[in-house]
Amino acid sequence: MTKTPVVQDIDGGITAPAGFRAAGVACGIKRRKPDATSAPLDLALIVAEGPVSAAAVFTTNKATAAPVIVSREHLAASGGKATAIVVNAGCANACTGEAGMAAARDMAAAAASAAGCTPDQVVVASTGVIGVPLDMTKVKAGISAAARELSASGSDAAMRAIMTTDPFPKSKAVMVTTPAGSFKVGGIAKGSGMIEPRMATMLGFLTTDANVAPAVLQKALRRVSDETFNAITVDGECSTNDCVFILASGKSGVEITRDDDPALVAGLRAVSEHLAREIVRGGEGATKLVTVKVTGAATYDDAWLAARTIANSPLVKTAIHGGDPNWGRLVAAAGRSGAAFVLDRASVAVGPVQVFVAGVPHDERADQAAEVMKSDQVTVTVDLGTGGTHAATMWTCDFSAEYVRINAEYRT
Amino acid sequence: MTKTPVVQDIDGGITAPAGFRAAGVACGIKRRKPDATSAPLDLALIVAEGPVSAAAVFTTNKATAAPVIVSREHLAASGGKATAIVVNAGCANACTGEAGMAAARDMAAAAASAAGCTPDQVVVASTGVIGVPLDMTKVKAGISAAARELSASGSDAAMRAIMTTDPFPKSKAVMVTTPAGSFKVGGIAKGSGMIEPRMATMLGFLTTDANVAPAVLQKALRRVSDETFNAITVDGECSTNDCVFILASGKSGVEITRDDDPALVAGLRAVSEHLAREIVRGGEGATKLVTVKVTGAATYDDAWLAARTIANSPLVKTAIHGGDPNWGRLVAAAGRSGAAFVLDRASVAVGPVQVFVAGVPHDERADQAAEVMKSDQVTVTVDLGTGGTHAATMWTCDFSAEYVRINAEYRT
Repeated sequence: MTKTPVVQDIDGGITAPAGFRAAGVACGIKRRKPDATSAPLDLALIVAEGPVSAAAVFTTNKATAAPVIVSREHLAASGGKATAIVVNAGCANACTGEAGMAAARDMAAAAASAAGCTPDQVVVASTGVIGVPLDMTKVKAGISAAARELSASGSDAAMRAIMTTDPFPKSKAVMVTTPAGSFKVGGIAKGSGMIEPRMATMLGFLTTDANVAPAVLQKALRRVSDETFNAITVDGECSTNDCVFILASGKSGVEITRDDDPALVAGLRAVSEHLAREIVRGGEGATKLVTVKVTGAATYDDAWLAARTIANSPLVKTAIHGGDPNWGRLVAAAGRSGAAFVLDRASVAVGPVQVFVAGVPHDERADQAAEVMKSDQVTVTVDLGTGGTHAATMWTCDFSAEYVRINAEYRT
Repeated sequence: MTKTPVVQDIDGGITAPAGFRAAGVACGIKRRKPDATSAPLDLALIVAEGPVSAAAVFTTNKATAAPVIVSREHLAASGGKATAIVVNAGCANACTGEAGMAAARDMAAAAASAAGCTPDQVVVASTGVIGVPLDMTKVKAGISAAARELSASGSDAAMRAIMTTDPFPKSKAVMVTTPAGSFKVGGIAKGSGMIEPRMATMLGFLTTDANVAPAVLQKALRRVSDETFNAITVDGECSTNDCVFILASGKSGVEITRDDDPALVAGLRAVSEHLAREIVRGGEGATKLVTVKVTGAATYDDAWLAARTIANSPLVKTAIHGGDPNWGRLVAAAGRSGAAFVLDRASVAVGPVQVFVAGVPHDERADQAAEVMKSDQVTVTVDLGTGGTHAATMWTCDFSAEYVRINAEYRT
């Protein structure tokens, strides 16, 4: 598989790849909105036909939520095999102590009996309010109901069931064609809409029908996540519950043996990058999707550090919100990032407009750059001026007064 | 000097200590406000009677402004001696290339001739818009005018001349009484009001009439700055021009030989902490001064890292703005900081109200905590639960929609 793989968009989300069924049901954990005619979906189940290769990337937050701890244990115990993923929204089961750990284990056990597998073949995720106990009566009833509704067209319901206050649902699927045949990759995700205080979880669930061993799948997921799910930021926060899971059914018959296989990476990347960008686009109060590119870095780590510092800079994000091509803030953020930086050779572009070139301001182009910034998608490029060839890309959103309003509201 | 030193507030700012004169004049760099009856003060001169011990702490931003580079060179060349400090506001002389370096050197030379010393006995600071050339005709005229107005009661004018968009001026002086006699420490500072886009400079100028060798003074300034000027944050940004200078005239006759001398540290700390807190209180859009205390850390670095992460967390700062005792956001920020953190033993208090104790939420105290948060000064304490005894304190402000409005306004 050395040829460039062909990646085509298809429908179907996580149930597009062969060998997966999914369901989303309402079990009563999420509050019903006053004007809603039905209870919101809040429990999702994703089931393979038996134990399949599984991999995960978890939050690095040390205030780790119970479902993260349990899922990590289960993947270790099963040797990277899983049959089912169970997810609830509306309650994060985080900062809930021993009772929370027991609840996460019970949730896995209930999903295991519904899916006909052992508990350690189930991974668990929760998203919602921190510090509130999970109502296991509701969760168990939800799992039973979801098991009855599992279908090969269930991705849509699952996608809606994992949402908290996301402004829109997020789904993607692709078919990857290789000389050895074609396979599919699908995914759903939720972002960190945070209208309910204390909510801040990014969850991603991917499936593929490629045939990939767990260790290879884990490395490939890590590689792709670092450049997609881990390359986005809304406000620099990292939650107690963040995780991305992938299951690989092997049903396509296409065998992948290397974690840097171009077809596997292209498929995972197409799905992951779309979902990651959608999470940013749906960030609290966001009005613009901003791509931050850093070039001319001495090392990849430097490029990443500078991109992340710029992407999280409140001054950069407010300038972009105001449509201000304020290169000074980009230079200052790059300069304080810790990355090697040579001011006299550094450059900044807003879209294609070079507003600072090799240490020299070009404010005569400010109006042109301001015009570019009126779009709802803006790319800023900062060259660190070291003469190095390393680069990194990060996605962020602008910073609006609406963000503050959303997050400053006292919880009721 | 092993007894606890007595520190008393006095008037007079930087001209309170013996041996210093100061002036602040209008030289036309700052724009006059439409409704103003006179031009705003924008050039300050602080002069000792001859070369005295000098020390400085500079920005770590690699996009270093010309005056920072020149001041660092001069202190190295003079062996830590200086006679004068010259400061302009309204133009940062940053990102101005070779012309900017020449301007900073010219500014020092002009101040040197006014003060009757060599150029390397002058340190220079600038604050204001980035990327705009400094008008040296105005600066030189300003230096001449300031030299004529130097007086032992000039601190007030100097204090006003260094302001950019600070909502209020910042000054402090103390007398420190020791068994060996008494000495004075004075200081003025400006914060990073940023209504003018691209402005973001914190400047602090201290004087003392204690007799301290340059190397001792440098270590003492570094020590105190780390716990005061470097322990504040408005938005996590670090400017191209930040610096704190101190001059020690020796006129009090009190000799200090150690950088950890309790009297010296107490005097510097009283002045520096006051000025640092005032900078935060005057942060853009700030409505509350927030003291973040981290305890139970395994190391001081961990305590500092966790305190800084909490103090810069947009979710924490918006919650405080909204008066929401949202311990989940404090726990999540501590957890993602990189500091060692043990969730099951971690605790959070808002003022005296323990809202999260050893991993257990106490939401029944939320109303009590919300009451505490109505004050314009709020202390939050997070114990990292490691059993360690290290602690750190940082000051920050809340995050308001006004911050976004100020910083999103397109520059005119």
